[in-house]
Amino acid sequence: MSTSRQQPRILGVDPGSRITGWGLIEVEGSEPRWLDHGVIRLHQKAPLPERLSLLYDGMTSLLSKTEPDEVAVEELYVARNARSALILGHARGVIMLACARHGLIPEEYPANTVKQAVLGQGGASATKERVAFMVRAILGLDEIPQPADITDALACAICHAHKRDLPT
Amino acid sequence: MSTSRQQPRILGVDPGSRITGWGLIEVEGSEPRWLDHGVIRLHQKAPLPERLSLLYDGMTSLLSKTEPDEVAVEELYVARNARSALILGHARGVIMLACARHGLIPEEYPANTVKQAVLGQGGASATKERVAFMVRAILGLDEIPQPADITDALACAICHAHKRDLPT
Repeated sequence: MSTSRQQPRILGVDPGSRITGWGLIEVEGSEPRWLDHGVIRLHQKAPLPERLSLLYDGMTSLLSKTEPDEVAVEELYVARNARSALILGHARGVIMLACARHGLIPEEYPANTVKQAVLGQGGASATKERVAFMVRAILGLDEIPQPADITDALACAICHAHKRDLPT
Repeated sequence: MSTSRQQPRILGVDPGSRITGWGLIEVEGSEPRWLDHGVIRLHQKAPLPERLSLLYDGMTSLLSKTEPDEVAVEELYVARNARSALILGHARGVIMLACARHGLIPEEYPANTVKQAVLGQGGASATKERVAFMVRAILGLDEIPQPADITDALACAICHAHKRDLPT
């Protein structure tokens, strides 16, 4: 981890038990610039502990490859399907562990804060499609990255870029 | 992991974000015998990623120290407080990861199955105190181990001892 980088790198992560999206940006002031994005995919049929182990490996190698200075994830939300939320908690715990082992404490942002960061005030009720559209526009990408896990992760990184310099 | 042990060792684990209880037994046939028990305690005020990192370390050293052949944990349940359940999911994910890295895939049992294993049919609605009392009796302990996270973990290990030889 480098804290002296002029243009700090922010890794946004959208944790999932099947697909974890990630997006890497760098910031100058609070201006975000796209660097990279991708997903960590897990075999749905593998037992959960094995999936978690693969996720940990994937996350660890992602951190080594991308060398972020800061990590941002969406805050825990309570899903309609409580069982899915619990499984998601497992995946999220492993991602947080991988970050902590890498010397990084992820910053957490509520989903509404992330949406507002890319859509402005009143954007909290917007759809994933609208978020994806704005992420593409803000970062000047040629097309919208797929799946939505990636644009959600990039939105989270953009949100952190906006918030990190603000007094708390 | 040894799979050739005559009297396999079972580690029961009751995951928690503050206290994780564990209990180690060995079995001859399906007869459980107490070996050891304890807790992994986490500082509640540390940031979650740090707590998860300490939990991972604690779990890894526990697995090295106790050398279980099999691990049993209570199945994910949906708590009344959904946020607690999500945090619990984080801790549970890290525990499962530590087991997987140790070559062990934990067996999961629903809470009611665990209760019935120590209390018999109709015991599913019993209190934690009743479970603790029966765990002490089954294992012939001088006193009831405290806190209840330990007796819950031992109950889970006893449950696995009963179930592991049954055809599924």
